[in-house]
Amino acid sequence: MDGIVKVPVALGERSYDILIGEGLAADAGRWFRAVLPKARACIITDSNVSGRHLVAFEKSLRRAGVTASAVVIPAGEASKCFDVFEQVVDQVVGGRYERGDAVVALGGGVVGDLAGFVAGVVRRGMRFVQVPTTLLSQVDSSVGGKTGINSRHGKNLVGVFHQPDLVLADTKVLDTLPEREFRAGYAEVVKYGLIDNADFFASLEKTWRDVFAGGPARTEAIAVSCRSKAAIVARDERETGDRALLNLGHTFGHAIETAAGYSGAVVHGEAVSLGMVLAHDFSVRLNQMSPDDANRIRSHLAEVGLPTRLSEIPGGAPSVSTFMELIGQDKKVQNGALTFILSRGIGEAFIAKDVPAEAVRAFLTDKLSEGQA
Amino acid sequence: MDGIVKVPVALGERSYDILIGEGLAADAGRWFRAVLPKARACIITDSNVSGRHLVAFEKSLRRAGVTASAVVIPAGEASKCFDVFEQVVDQVVGGRYERGDAVVALGGGVVGDLAGFVAGVVRRGMRFVQVPTTLLSQVDSSVGGKTGINSRHGKNLVGVFHQPDLVLADTKVLDTLPEREFRAGYAEVVKYGLIDNADFFASLEKTWRDVFAGGPARTEAIAVSCRSKAAIVARDERETGDRALLNLGHTFGHAIETAAGYSGAVVHGEAVSLGMVLAHDFSVRLNQMSPDDANRIRSHLAEVGLPTRLSEIPGGAPSVSTFMELIGQDKKVQNGALTFILSRGIGEAFIAKDVPAEAVRAFLTDKLSEGQA
Repeated sequence: MDGIVKVPVALGERSYDILIGEGLAADAGRWFRAVLPKARACIITDSNVSGRHLVAFEKSLRRAGVTASAVVIPAGEASKCFDVFEQVVDQVVGGRYERGDAVVALGGGVVGDLAGFVAGVVRRGMRFVQVPTTLLSQVDSSVGGKTGINSRHGKNLVGVFHQPDLVLADTKVLDTLPEREFRAGYAEVVKYGLIDNADFFASLEKTWRDVFAGGPARTEAIAVSCRSKAAIVARDERETGDRALLNLGHTFGHAIETAAGYSGAVVHGEAVSLGMVLAHDFSVRLNQMSPDDANRIRSHLAEVGLPTRLSEIPGGAPSVSTFMELIGQDKKVQNGALTFILSRGIGEAFIAKDVPAEAVRAFLTDKLSEGQA
Repeated sequence: MDGIVKVPVALGERSYDILIGEGLAADAGRWFRAVLPKARACIITDSNVSGRHLVAFEKSLRRAGVTASAVVIPAGEASKCFDVFEQVVDQVVGGRYERGDAVVALGGGVVGDLAGFVAGVVRRGMRFVQVPTTLLSQVDSSVGGKTGINSRHGKNLVGVFHQPDLVLADTKVLDTLPEREFRAGYAEVVKYGLIDNADFFASLEKTWRDVFAGGPARTEAIAVSCRSKAAIVARDERETGDRALLNLGHTFGHAIETAAGYSGAVVHGEAVSLGMVLAHDFSVRLNQMSPDDANRIRSHLAEVGLPTRLSEIPGGAPSVSTFMELIGQDKKVQNGALTFILSRGIGEAFIAKDVPAEAVRAFLTDKLSEGQA
C-alpha cells in the first residue's frame, strides 16, 4: 500500500512495527492477520471513539476473517481506575479469550493505557495491538509498552510494561479530532525536536501548517516522532536511564495538570507546552542554554496556538507552594535535590540529577510574579 | 551458615537464588541486604502468619538496617480478589515505596501470589522477595514467577510473570504448620518424583517419615523439589511448552477443588493427590503405563495419609457431567480434544495434546461407579 511508513521498534524478542499512513485503519484486518495469523480480537474502545470508528473497524477485521467483539468504556481519564479495570478484565476473561488472542486498543491514551494493562494481566499476558486515534497517542502513549491506571495517590502508578505486537497509526483518523486536541498532541511532536533533533524542530517551524492540514507532511512528522521514541525506548525499555528524557516538560506539566484537577481546563498537551517553556526558561536561568533558543521554542509553540505563559491557565496558575508540593509528589526529593530534564539548546536535552529544590522555588517565584505583572 | 542449600534459578538477567535451610528466617535481614543493599521492605502477610512470625521477621530486617512496614490481609483464598488487590496496592503506593524497594511476601501461596502481583504492577514493577511459610509454597508457588489473583470466572486468571529477587525457605517454620497442611504440600513434593525423577520418588518411599519429622531430610526433599521446578522454569519461563508438566494431576485436581467450592473440605494438595492418582490410572487405561507403577504411586500417597480414592471426598465426588464441565472450563477443548499430562511410568510424565474428551468421560464414568461400589 502506498504512503505507509514502517517504524520498527527493536526490543529483541519483543520487537514490533509501528505502521503509519493515511487510511490504514480500513485495512486493519489484513495487518492484524499478517502479525497474528490465528488470534481473535477483543476491542477496547471508548464512548466517543466507538460512535466514529468502531463499526468500520470491526468490519475491516471481519473482512479479514478475524473474530472480534468490543468492550466500550466511558470516555475520559476517570476510566483509568480500578473499577473499570476490573470490569474490562472480567469481560475479556468471560469472553474466553486465550493468551494467543489479542486485546486491541482503539482510541486515545486512556484506552491504550487501560487496554494494555488488561492485555498484560489477563492469563498473565495476552497479545496486544494498538490502534491510536489521537495525535497524542500516535506519537507517544501507543509506543514503548508503558500501560497502567491511576491510583488515588497519583497518575499511572499501577501498571506493567507490556509491548504491543503491532501499532496501526491511521493519520486520516486525526481529521475527526477537535482542533484543540490535535494541537495539544502536537506539543509532544515538538518535544522530539527539542530532545535530540534540532533539524526536526527547524522543519516543524516551516511546515507545521501542513502537519495540521494532513497528508504526507503529517505522516512524516508522526513517523519522525515515533522513530525518536522507538530509539530511546530501544536503549532503555524500563526507564532506568535515557528514557527519562521523554519527560522533558513533564515535571512542570504534571504539576499544572494536577493543579487544574484534570477538569479539561488544561489538557495534557497544553500542560506539556507550558512545562517545556518552563523547563527551557529554567535551563536559561541555570546558565545551561541561551535565551535565544528558549525564545525560539516559545515563539513556535505560541504560533501554533499552544499556551506558553502561566497567565494563560484558565482559573490562574498554581501558587509556588502548590507547585512545589506537586513536584515533590511527582519526584523523589533526595536531600533537597530533584532530577529534572534540562537542556543546553534546541535538540540538546539532558538529565540533571542534582537540581536544588530551592533553585526551582526561586525560579517559580520569579515566573509567577512576571505572570501576574 | 551451616546446612543452607542454595538453588539457583537460571533466567538470564532475571536469575535469582532460592535459599533453603533450618532457621533461615532469623537471618532474613542479612540475606535481604546481600541481594538488595538499599531497598526498603513492604511486608505482605496474612492474619494467621502475622501472629506466628511477623514480629520476629521484622526484627530480623531491622537488625540488618532494613526499613520495613507490614500490610496484613485476611487469611484464605478469598483474599486473592480485586478488592484486596486494590487495597494492598493502595497501601504500598501510599507508603511511598519506589521501584527499587521490595514487596516481601511472608506467608503461603495466597500471600505469595497476591504480593507478587502487587510487586509486578506498582510503579510498573518493584523488587520482590518470597518468604514462603508453607511446604506447598516452598516447593511450588514461590518458585517460578507466576503471580496473580482469581477472577469470578476462575482461579489465577489475572496476574503477571514477575520473578522474585530472592526466595528464603525456612524449613523450621514448617514445624508450626497443621499436619494436614504439611501433608497436602507433600503431594507436590511427590509430583516432582513422578514428573521426571524416579530416584527421588523411590527415596521418598523410604524416607518420607524423616521429611515429615524435619531436619536434613526435609531440607533435602525441598531442595530437590525446587531444583526440579527451577530446571523446568528455566527451560520454559512463560509456559509455552514443558512447563505444563508441572500441571501433572492438576486438571483432575482443579475440577475436584472447584466442585468442593474451596470450602476447605478438600485442600489443594489433597485434590492434587487425587488428581495424580487419576492421571496415572488414566494413563494405564490408555495403555501408556503399567498398572504396577500406578499402584506404587497410590500406595505411597495413601501411606502418608493423602486421599487416593474419589470416595474419600467429603460430601462425595463430583458427577461425571460436573467433572467434564469443570475440565472444559480449565482447558481449551479443541475439536473434542484436550491437552493432558499423562505418564509412561514413574518419572516419565509427558504432555499429550490430543486426548479425546470422550476417553476422559468414559474413564471417569467407570471410576465413579467403582467409587460408589
